[in-house]
Amino acid sequence: MIKKPVITLAAGPVQGYPEVLQAMAQPLGYDYDPSFLAFYEEVAKKCATAMRVKDPALIIQAEPAVAIEAAAASLISRQDVVLNLASGVYGKGFGYWSARHHKEMIEIEVPYNEAILPDAVEQAFKERPDISIVSMVHHDTPSGTINPLVEIGKIVEKHGALLLVDAVSSFGGMDVHPGDCHADVFITGPGKCLGGTPGVTFMAISEAAWAHMEANPDSPRASILSLLDWKNAWRRTEPFPFTPSVAEISGLSAAIDLYLAEGPEAVWRRHALTAKACRAGVRAMGVELWAASEAIASPSTTSIRVPDGLTDSRIIETVRNDYGVMLSIGRGETLGKLLRIGHMGPTAEPIYAVVAVAALGGALSKLGFSADPAAGVAAAMAVINDAVA
Amino acid sequence: MIKKPVITLAAGPVQGYPEVLQAMAQPLGYDYDPSFLAFYEEVAKKCATAMRVKDPALIIQAEPAVAIEAAAASLISRQDVVLNLASGVYGKGFGYWSARHHKEMIEIEVPYNEAILPDAVEQAFKERPDISIVSMVHHDTPSGTINPLVEIGKIVEKHGALLLVDAVSSFGGMDVHPGDCHADVFITGPGKCLGGTPGVTFMAISEAAWAHMEANPDSPRASILSLLDWKNAWRRTEPFPFTPSVAEISGLSAAIDLYLAEGPEAVWRRHALTAKACRAGVRAMGVELWAASEAIASPSTTSIRVPDGLTDSRIIETVRNDYGVMLSIGRGETLGKLLRIGHMGPTAEPIYAVVAVAALGGALSKLGFSADPAAGVAAAMAVINDAVA
Amino acid sequence: MIKKPVITLAAGPVQGYPEVLQAMAQPLGYDYDPSFLAFYEEVAKKCATAMRVKDPALIIQAEPAVAIEAAAASLISRQDVVLNLASGVYGKGFGYWSARHHKEMIEIEVPYNEAILPDAVEQAFKERPDISIVSMVHHDTPSGTINPLVEIGKIVEKHGALLLVDAVSSFGGMDVHPGDCHADVFITGPGKCLGGTPGVTFMAISEAAWAHMEANPDSPRASILSLLDWKNAWRRTEPFPFTPSVAEISGLSAAIDLYLAEGPEAVWRRHALTAKACRAGVRAMGVELWAASEAIASPSTTSIRVPDGLTDSRIIETVRNDYGVMLSIGRGETLGKLLRIGHMGPTAEPIYAVVAVAALGGALSKLGFSADPAAGVAAAMAVINDAVA
Amino acid sequence: MIKKPVITLAAGPVQGYPEVLQAMAQPLGYDYDPSFLAFYEEVAKKCATAMRVKDPALIIQAEPAVAIEAAAASLISRQDVVLNLASGVYGKGFGYWSARHHKEMIEIEVPYNEAILPDAVEQAFKERPDISIVSMVHHDTPSGTINPLVEIGKIVEKHGALLLVDAVSSFGGMDVHPGDCHADVFITGPGKCLGGTPGVTFMAISEAAWAHMEANPDSPRASILSLLDWKNAWRRTEPFPFTPSVAEISGLSAAIDLYLAEGPEAVWRRHALTAKACRAGVRAMGVELWAASEAIASPSTTSIRVPDGLTDSRIIETVRNDYGVMLSIGRGETLGKLLRIGHMGPTAEPIYAVVAVAALGGALSKLGFSADPAAGVAAAMAVINDAVA
Repeated sequence: MIKKPVITLAAGPVQGYPEVLQAMAQPLGYDYDPSFLAFYEEVAKKCATAMRVKDPALIIQAEPAVAIEAAAASLISRQDVVLNLASGVYGKGFGYWSARHHKEMIEIEVPYNEAILPDAVEQAFKERPDISIVSMVHHDTPSGTINPLVEIGKIVEKHGALLLVDAVSSFGGMDVHPGDCHADVFITGPGKCLGGTPGVTFMAISEAAWAHMEANPDSPRASILSLLDWKNAWRRTEPFPFTPSVAEISGLSAAIDLYLAEGPEAVWRRHALTAKACRAGVRAMGVELWAASEAIASPSTTSIRVPDGLTDSRIIETVRNDYGVMLSIGRGETLGKLLRIGHMGPTAEPIYAVVAVAALGGALSKLGFSADPAAGVAAAMAVINDAVA
Repeated sequence: MIKKPVITLAAGPVQGYPEVLQAMAQPLGYDYDPSFLAFYEEVAKKCATAMRVKDPALIIQAEPAVAIEAAAASLISRQDVVLNLASGVYGKGFGYWSARHHKEMIEIEVPYNEAILPDAVEQAFKERPDISIVSMVHHDTPSGTINPLVEIGKIVEKHGALLLVDAVSSFGGMDVHPGDCHADVFITGPGKCLGGTPGVTFMAISEAAWAHMEANPDSPRASILSLLDWKNAWRRTEPFPFTPSVAEISGLSAAIDLYLAEGPEAVWRRHALTAKACRAGVRAMGVELWAASEAIASPSTTSIRVPDGLTDSRIIETVRNDYGVMLSIGRGETLGKLLRIGHMGPTAEPIYAVVAVAALGGALSKLGFSADPAAGVAAAMAVINDAVA
Repeated sequence: MIKKPVITLAAGPVQGYPEVLQAMAQPLGYDYDPSFLAFYEEVAKKCATAMRVKDPALIIQAEPAVAIEAAAASLISRQDVVLNLASGVYGKGFGYWSARHHKEMIEIEVPYNEAILPDAVEQAFKERPDISIVSMVHHDTPSGTINPLVEIGKIVEKHGALLLVDAVSSFGGMDVHPGDCHADVFITGPGKCLGGTPGVTFMAISEAAWAHMEANPDSPRASILSLLDWKNAWRRTEPFPFTPSVAEISGLSAAIDLYLAEGPEAVWRRHALTAKACRAGVRAMGVELWAASEAIASPSTTSIRVPDGLTDSRIIETVRNDYGVMLSIGRGETLGKLLRIGHMGPTAEPIYAVVAVAALGGALSKLGFSADPAAGVAAAMAVINDAVA
Repeated sequence: MIKKPVITLAAGPVQGYPEVLQAMAQPLGYDYDPSFLAFYEEVAKKCATAMRVKDPALIIQAEPAVAIEAAAASLISRQDVVLNLASGVYGKGFGYWSARHHKEMIEIEVPYNEAILPDAVEQAFKERPDISIVSMVHHDTPSGTINPLVEIGKIVEKHGALLLVDAVSSFGGMDVHPGDCHADVFITGPGKCLGGTPGVTFMAISEAAWAHMEANPDSPRASILSLLDWKNAWRRTEPFPFTPSVAEISGLSAAIDLYLAEGPEAVWRRHALTAKACRAGVRAMGVELWAASEAIASPSTTSIRVPDGLTDSRIIETVRNDYGVMLSIGRGETLGKLLRIGHMGPTAEPIYAVVAVAALGGALSKLGFSADPAAGVAAAMAVINDAVA
C-alpha cells in the first residue's frame, strides 16, 4: 500500500470538507421513500439558492464531464451553428462533443495560457449572425485561466444566442452565477470549490434552453445523455429516470450548506487570497506562471510553467516524496508543460499557499532549479499579511 | 422534514453496510495520486475476484442503468442481430437501447411474472442462426423473478453468440458468475446484494466482447457511453478518461471486502433463507406471490401481487406510517400491480422477513384485506427454525 | 471474528442514531481552541435546555457510573444522614458508595421487581428528620422498573433534604426533568434513551447542592471524583480540569439536537408505545413480566422473568443465533433471573417490539417453553394498531 | 459559531487520523454482545503488541489523567515511600495524588526546562533505600521535555522499587516501551502520538505491580479509581466493572492498527524529523527553545519561550487569525512562559514543521519581534532535505 499524501493541493478532486465526508456516511435509503423525495427536492432548491436562480437545479447523477457531454447532446440540434470558445483543453474538447450534433461550428481558439477576448466574440457574431449557441469554459482547469464570462455573456445575450457555460471549477470559488453572465446552461458541481465529491453535477438551465431542447428532435431520451429526462425529477411527485446516487446527494447537500453558512463572499475571498499569495510566492522563486497575465489567473488554481530542463513528473514526485504534498499535473495539451496547485474548498486557505510554495520550492531546488523557497514563502506571507492587517 | 423510515426493506437502493458507509467518509484525494491509482487497480482486481474472473473488472462511474446503456451502445453494431429476452421491465427496456444500434432484434417476451424458457432460446437460434448477441436480465428487479441464466448461457455459447447479462440485483445474493453462464458482458454493482451504494457499476467483459466492441466502428469514444475508453483505466499507469467517483470507489472496495470476508456461500445462504421465509410468510397470509412459481422467485426480492380492491400506494404508506418499514413499489409495467420486499445485503437476514411479513400483514388487515399477520409470522419463523435447527 | 448481531435491542449501550455516529467522526481538535471552547459551552447549554433547567449542564468526561460515584463523593459529607432508596441493583449499589462518605445511612429496600412507595419515604422522614440527602434511581435498569420520582421528590423537598437522582436510563425516554421532581443532583447521559454513546454524562445540579458540596471539606478536588472541579468548566473563559473527551462531546451534541428536533413528547410517546406493545406481546406468549405490575414497568426496558427450567444465557444465545437479535441479561442480583429488551433511542420504535417478541418467542419455543410467537406478535401489533388508528 | 482552525498543531488533543475518526462512527452495540467481548479482548492484546509486552493491556475508560490518578490510588499504600521525579507540571502534579496515599514522599525537582539526572535518582536511593515506588513522567507535555527513562529505569530496577511511568505523550512517537525501561505501571493512550481520541487510556502493568496493588488494603474497589476492578476485564469471559466506552474502543483499535501497519520505527522517524526541523526553524528565527538543551527536547512537542515583551495569548491568537493554525499554550507553571507546537500522529509530518515555523514567524513579526519567517522556513527545510536526500 502506498502512503497517502499528507496534504492534497490538487486541482480536483479535492480534499473534501469533513462535514461532506460525514454526510456521505449517512445511511442509504430507498430513492422513492418520501423522506428522500423531499430531501432531493430540498437539495435541488438549495443548489438553486447557491446559484442565485429561481428554479430548482438540475442534478445529474454523474461527474460534470458527463453532464457537459449530455448538455451538448441535449441542446445542440442539427440546425445549430455553434460558436465554441477554446482557451484550453476543456474548451477545445467541447467542440468534439458539439461536432456530433451541430450543423456547423465556428471556433475561436487562443493559446492555452490566454483568455478569449470579448471583441473576438462580437466579431464572430458580426460575421455569422446565425450563431445560435455559444459554448465556453469559465475556468479551463487544465490551464488555470479564467475567461471574461460576464462580458462575453452580455454579447451573447445581445445577439440572442444561447450560452452554455462550464463553470465546474470556478463556481463557489469566485463571484459567478448564471444570472450575472446570462448563461442558459450553467454547469457546475460540488467536487471543486465547494469541497465535495466529483461524482455528481448540478446545473441551472434557462427557459429558453429548455425550449430549445424540447424542440430538438434528437435531444436524447431514456439515456444518461438526456437532460430532459431529469427536468422535473426534482419534484417529489415525479419519478426518477434512473436511480439517483443517494450518497452523492447527501454529500452535495452538505457542501452547499457549508457554502451558504460561511457566506459566498467569504468563501470567494479566501480563494482569491490563497491564489494571490501563491502566485506571489512562485514568482518570487523565479518560477513562471502559466497564465499570460495575472489578471486571467484563476483564484482556484495556480498553474506554473515547468522550468526548462525539468519534467512535471519529477517535480511532482519530489514534492510528494519529500514533503508529502500532492499537486496536479496538466491534462491533454497542457500535460508536461505545467503544474497546478489547487485552491479549492478546504484548501483555499492562505496557509496552503505557503505550504505549496515551500514544497514546490524545495523540490525545484533539489532538482537543480535555482529556486529560493525562503524568498517564495516570504512573498506569499507578505500577501497574507497585507490582507489581514 | 419527513422522518426517515425505521427499517428500509426496499429492492434497492438498500440500507448500506456500516463499513461501506464509513468508507464513503474517507478523505477524498486527487485521482492521479499514486495511492489512488494503486487503490483503483486493487479494487478492480478485487471485483474480479468476487466475480471469479481473471481480468480486473471494468468499473463504470455511474449507476448500473448507465452502464447497461453504455454496454448496448458499445457492443451492438449495425451488423448485429440481437436476441432480447424480456421477462420484465428491465429486459424489455434493453430492447429500446438495442434498437438504437442493432441491425435487427428478435425478442422473446413472456408475461412479467414468468421466466424465459431455455427451449425458446434454442428455438430462436434454430430460426435465426444469425443471432450474434443475446441480451438478458438475470433478475428482473421490477418483477422479482429469476431467469435460468446458466441454461441459457450454455445455449448461447453453443451457438457462438455473445451474451450480455444484467446481473445487477442477483450477483452477490446468489450463486451467479460470468464464467458459470458464459457471459461476455456481465454487469453488476454494489448497490443491491452487496449492500453498497447505487452510484457505481462493475463489469466483467470477455475477450470476445472486447474484440466485438473494437471492431464496431460506432462504439462510442470520448463518452460516458464508451466502455472502450475505460478498458485499461484500471492500470495504475493509464489515465482515467474522466474523473472517477473517488468516494464511490472507496465504498465499492468496502462492499467487496465484506462479501469476500463473510464468504460468498454464507451470503447467498442468508439471501435464500430470508426470501424463503418471506414467501412462506406472505403466502400464509393469503397474499399471492407475483412470481408464477416459487422456483423463479428471486432470493433478493419478494414480489407480491396487490390484492384486489387495494392500491400499492395505500399499502406502502400504511406499512411505513404504522410500522416505520419502507417497501418498494413496482416500476413501469409492474407499477401498481405488485409490491416488493428487498432482501439485499444487510437486509438479507431472516429476521427482516419476519419484520416484512408482520408489517405488511398489519397494513393489509387495516386496509380491509383479511390477512392474518400472526399466521404469516408463524410461517416465516417455521422456515427459519427449520434452517437453524 | 464473531458476526455482529443484526439488530441490537439491549438495555444499553444502544445502537446509536446515525447522526450521532457521524458526529463522532468529526475531526478532533485542541480543547483550548476557541471554536471548541464555544462549542462546549453551547453543548452544556443545550443539555440544560433538554433537561429544562436554567444553568448549563455539568458534563462529566466518563460514563454515568463514574459520575454517580463522583456525585456521592462530592455531595455526601461526614455530617450527612442519607436515605437510600433501593429497588434494584443500582439503587442498592449507591449505598456502598454513600458508605464511604456519610455519617449514617437509612435504607428502604423493596424486592427488585417492585417500586419504592412514597409513603415509606414519608415515614422515614418522620422517624429520622435528620435525613439530609435522599438518593434514588428513577429507572433501575437491571430490573426495568420505575420509581415514583415526582411523588418522592415532593416529600423530599417538603422535608428540606437534598435529592440525588440517577435518571440515566429514563431521561429522554419519558417525561422526567430535574424541576418536576425537585432533584438537586440529576444524573443522565446520552447512552440510553438519547441514542448516543455511553462514555459521557451530563447532570443538573441545584444551587443548594453546589452549596452543600462547597461546604463539604471532603468533597474531592483534583480528581475525576470531583464535581466542583468542573463546575465552571462550561464557560469558554475557564480552563478544563483535565482534557475533555472531544469526540464524545460531539456525539452528545448530536444526540441532544435530535431529541429537541424530534420533540421530547414525540420521543417519549414512541418509547411508551414500544414498551407497551412489547409487554402485550410477551404476556400473550405466557411469559411473565419481571415488574410486579405494568404500572411500574419502564418505557425504555421490558424485563421478563426467565421461565422455569430455562437459563438466561441459553435463551439469549438462541435469540441471537437464530434471529440475529441481541437482548440484555440481568446484572448483579437480577443476573440469571430476567432478560431485558431495550427500547431506547433508535430502538424505541414499535416495529422493534414485534421483532423482540417474535425472536424471543421463537427461541423460547425452541428451548421447550410453550410460547406461541404468533400470538405474541398479534398482541404486540394490536397495541400498535390501536395507537395509530 | 467560531470557524475551526485550518490546521491544528496542538500538543493534544490532536487531529485524529481519518481511519480513527471513521472507526468512531461504527454502530454502537451492547457491551456484552459476544462480538464486542471478543473485540475488546483483541484490542487489549493489540495494545500489548504495540507496547511489546506479553499480557493484554489494561484499558481504562477515561482519559489518561484519570488513569494516572487511579494508578496512584491503586498502587501507593500507606507503607510506601515514593520517590517522585518532577521536571514539569505533570511530574509535580503526581506528587499531590501520591500524597493522598503514601507514607512519605521524596521529590527530586528540577527547573521545568530541564530533565531529571539519573545520578540524582541513584543518590536518592543511596540516601533512602526504603524507597518502594518511583514515579515519573517520560515526556512532560507542558514543558516539551524528555526524561532519561531508560537510565532511570535501570537504577530503579537495581534497587528493587516499582516504577510508575506516564508515557502518555511519548509512547507511539519515539522508541519507548515498558520492557525497555523496566516500568511496572506504564500509562499511555491513543490521544497523542497515536492520532486517536483523548477519552481512553491503556496501560501495561507488571506482575509485581499487580501484587503490590493486591496487597494494598486501600487499593480502591468498585470505583473508577480501581485498576484491580479491570484487571481481568479484557477476558471475553469476564464482566466489565462498568460500561466500557464502546466508541472509544473502536477508535483505539484503529489507532493501534495504523501504528502497527505503518511500522513503529517509521512512525518514530517522522516524529523525530518533524521536531528536528521545527527546532531548526524556530532557532533560525531567533526564537529560544524552552528546553535547556536540544537533547532533551521532545520529538512530539516543540516548546518555545515566549519572547520578552510579548504574551502567549497574543501570539497564539495571531497565528490562528492570520494563518488558521492552532498551537498550544502552556499549562500551570509553564502557562504564559511558553508556546507549544505538537508533532503527534498525523501532524508528525515534516511539512507541518514548515507550517508551524512560517505561521509562528509571521505572527511574531507582526507583533514586533524581529523574526524572519523566511530564514526559519529555510532552516526547517534544510533539515528535511538532509533527511530525504
